[in-house]
Amino acid sequence: MYQVDLNCDLGESFGRYMLGEQKEILKYVTSANIACGFHAGDPRVMRETVRLAVDHNVKIGAHPGLPDLNGFGRREMKITPQEAYDMVIYQIGALQGFLTACQTSMQHVKPHGALYNMAAQDEKLAEAIAQAVYDISADLILFGLAGSELTKAGERIGLQTVHEVFADRTYQADGSLTSRSQADAMIVDKEQSAAQVIKMVTEGKVLTQQGIEVPVKAHSICIHGDGEHALDFAKYLKEQLLQNKIKVAAMS
Amino acid sequence: MYQVDLNCDLGESFGRYMLGEQKEILKYVTSANIACGFHAGDPRVMRETVRLAVDHNVKIGAHPGLPDLNGFGRREMKITPQEAYDMVIYQIGALQGFLTACQTSMQHVKPHGALYNMAAQDEKLAEAIAQAVYDISADLILFGLAGSELTKAGERIGLQTVHEVFADRTYQADGSLTSRSQADAMIVDKEQSAAQVIKMVTEGKVLTQQGIEVPVKAHSICIHGDGEHALDFAKYLKEQLLQNKIKVAAMS
Amino acid sequence: MYQVDLNCDLGESFGRYMLGEQKEILKYVTSANIACGFHAGDPRVMRETVRLAVDHNVKIGAHPGLPDLNGFGRREMKITPQEAYDMVIYQIGALQGFLTACQTSMQHVKPHGALYNMAAQDEKLAEAIAQAVYDISADLILFGLAGSELTKAGERIGLQTVHEVFADRTYQADGSLTSRSQADAMIVDKEQSAAQVIKMVTEGKVLTQQGIEVPVKAHSICIHGDGEHALDFAKYLKEQLLQNKIKVAAMS
Amino acid sequence: MYQVDLNCDLGESFGRYMLGEQKEILKYVTSANIACGFHAGDPRVMRETVRLAVDHNVKIGAHPGLPDLNGFGRREMKITPQEAYDMVIYQIGALQGFLTACQTSMQHVKPHGALYNMAAQDEKLAEAIAQAVYDISADLILFGLAGSELTKAGERIGLQTVHEVFADRTYQADGSLTSRSQADAMIVDKEQSAAQVIKMVTEGKVLTQQGIEVPVKAHSICIHGDGEHALDFAKYLKEQLLQNKIKVAAMS
Repeated sequence: MYQVDLNCDLGESFGRYMLGEQKEILKYVTSANIACGFHAGDPRVMRETVRLAVDHNVKIGAHPGLPDLNGFGRREMKITPQEAYDMVIYQIGALQGFLTACQTSMQHVKPHGALYNMAAQDEKLAEAIAQAVYDISADLILFGLAGSELTKAGERIGLQTVHEVFADRTYQADGSLTSRSQADAMIVDKEQSAAQVIKMVTEGKVLTQQGIEVPVKAHSICIHGDGEHALDFAKYLKEQLLQNKIKVAAMS
Repeated sequence: MYQVDLNCDLGESFGRYMLGEQKEILKYVTSANIACGFHAGDPRVMRETVRLAVDHNVKIGAHPGLPDLNGFGRREMKITPQEAYDMVIYQIGALQGFLTACQTSMQHVKPHGALYNMAAQDEKLAEAIAQAVYDISADLILFGLAGSELTKAGERIGLQTVHEVFADRTYQADGSLTSRSQADAMIVDKEQSAAQVIKMVTEGKVLTQQGIEVPVKAHSICIHGDGEHALDFAKYLKEQLLQNKIKVAAMS
Repeated sequence: MYQVDLNCDLGESFGRYMLGEQKEILKYVTSANIACGFHAGDPRVMRETVRLAVDHNVKIGAHPGLPDLNGFGRREMKITPQEAYDMVIYQIGALQGFLTACQTSMQHVKPHGALYNMAAQDEKLAEAIAQAVYDISADLILFGLAGSELTKAGERIGLQTVHEVFADRTYQADGSLTSRSQADAMIVDKEQSAAQVIKMVTEGKVLTQQGIEVPVKAHSICIHGDGEHALDFAKYLKEQLLQNKIKVAAMS
Repeated sequence: MYQVDLNCDLGESFGRYMLGEQKEILKYVTSANIACGFHAGDPRVMRETVRLAVDHNVKIGAHPGLPDLNGFGRREMKITPQEAYDMVIYQIGALQGFLTACQTSMQHVKPHGALYNMAAQDEKLAEAIAQAVYDISADLILFGLAGSELTKAGERIGLQTVHEVFADRTYQADGSLTSRSQADAMIVDKEQSAAQVIKMVTEGKVLTQQGIEVPVKAHSICIHGDGEHALDFAKYLKEQLLQNKIKVAAMS
């Protein structure tokens, strides 16, 4: 039987600023990536989000980002591998504090935004992040873009690695995501999105914008927790997966 | 035989800004309170300071502060007990990340600056901080001003509690420190400082500005790591303690 | 004929975080207090908000706050008058940059949140803020709580001063606002709110919780820009003012 | 008679963190670039530095940087031209606040660190920064790397533009600075540094690492305000310039 994980970024509010429909999206996902205060999130938000994830029986991961709250961690910064290592250790540790206080454990780590994208392409950065995760615990699972430098680095160091795919993004012949600057980067039709995901999970392939199929590992699907149609789509996708006999469950 | 701990705030540099003679002061102290990024410190500084403390065989504690880098955590902020709890959990967790990566363990937690002072007087804040420390680990030692609300809260919840005294500050008849706004708040003469400390450790008493002696517990002495005469004084104090047959060692 | 100004806090979004129905509320108010990046707002938000206010022909003021984005500037911080002076100069200047680039001018300054409340009661802090405003330009108008230390300080230094009243807050016999910790602090009924405002503007009096009337100056009414009923109430209040022959216009 | 300006970055302290020998270096330079709180500096430091520069009769410029205090504005960030525009407006405005309060005026704007380097090479970013400076005042002087995209953008928009050269850096055949990652990037010998500067000022040429001379405009020389030998070198360079009949004066 096929199985896939549904993961979602959570805990992205900050102080008086609220972001995302956390309680609703937690009904559909199996893994939650919780922001750690650098690109989003703050101590109160982290505590509340951890509590909420535990209550919904959703597995928890750290979601470390670049130190750029104003840019939501989406602006690339030229950081050294050592700086990446240090900021990932710090953020995993901070979230672990709330997990410990809540007597629960961390399942995984998934870098956020620009850090995720940079780590997908830069081998040295990827290795530094994988090392940071490993140094916190060899039992943590590392989430990265399917087939990227980050998953490769995780595998080399001996971490369980989750290859992540996107339901709403189109793919290129080299297995990479179509850049958001391209007109055809996004899949807006939910049936098409679901079909792409089901093909990735059951066949291990994705139909690229070039019209050819390329292999892809699909351990986990990234679901968005904000935006108008986020909840609708999450619900629809989960139904489609189940109807296609695909078990939806966390990796651990 | 009498015994006392010497503790010092460390890891207070930030980015390009350097503060304190870390390598030198580590020769004299037995416990280091490492800043966690809110009032001072950053991920790189935390990693390097943890490494340095381990190399010098000095016990490590978290030194959580108010989120006020510009004010160095010295400006009181009207925070709720819940906010204090959350920011202490976050900061202990963040430092623990570097300790875990360094395969060492945390000995204690000592709040910084205004958070320390507020927790010394505000029962609710003190309880929230003690609860945060306890929720991370019942084995952590809580450092607080001798005889303060913080040490009381720590004792009530069941934490090992260290009563801290100051070598360079004068005391009032109620056992509190003379306010820095008073002319006679500081002891500048190093012989007088050492004598005060030795009396506190061996007799459990301090001579107050009112000319009377009051009881004081003196488990640990706070040593400053910056300032012109800090190293001189640390060296002198340690010598005086040893000459007076007082063992200088960490609590754990 | 009677006249009153309606002011509203604007530009409180930050990065990806959106706050307030700016475009809607600008239809009803005559003065906008724009956040300057310390408690809320960022350079992009400031530019866009200035543009929006100019387009709606609404007068612009700086809304400086404490450096506490996470607490939205609502947590009191023990700052010195000099620190208050410096942070007000900085924030007025930063907003002035966008006004200059937009070829428009600043009408007023109104401190935000905890800084506003502290300046209402602390004479030294009030004087430092009034001095900062005056040092930027003697033509700026200073907004403060009616009858507070801040308006007094503004008057002493020679600034035009606007006494601000609240439509949705009850008053005490000494002319102060009922503390939010009291059950009867808020007026939720919009007719009662409007009636209180009209009485304050036309009679210069407010009926306090003690059942007696006390004098109050009411140059400007603070309108909230977020919350469910904010727009409804703003619209209703403006209609009531006009029906009662009260001109709604900025002070300058 | 030849003339050149000596400029120096100032106001780089932050809160309790002190950086640079401000009072000493002000004896030698003619223009000061004052940090504006993004990569360094804070409201107090800005006020004090402005006062100091005025007292030393040194011309003042804004020194806007990337919002990265931890990285001292030296890490490149992928920002849009609009973001560059907004952050430059904000920072110039903030510094202008202190200049206004001090009844003095701003001479110039010089971007800091990574923003300076990015603007030297990226035409769109350079144009956005030049536009921001122009929108604040067409009378401001824009400082940029000699012959860079930034000085070109300034000239196109109609700003007076200062071409800046470095005394302690070697040059390449295309007129660019040798990258710091190269072994021969720095000139450590002070006589060689002074000779390079004098040649640039009097002949408009620099001898590159390739052994050929290329033309260079040298309106202002960047002097460092921290580091062991900074003051010594500043003093020596100024003496050498005067001995070679080169007038040392600000541009305005």
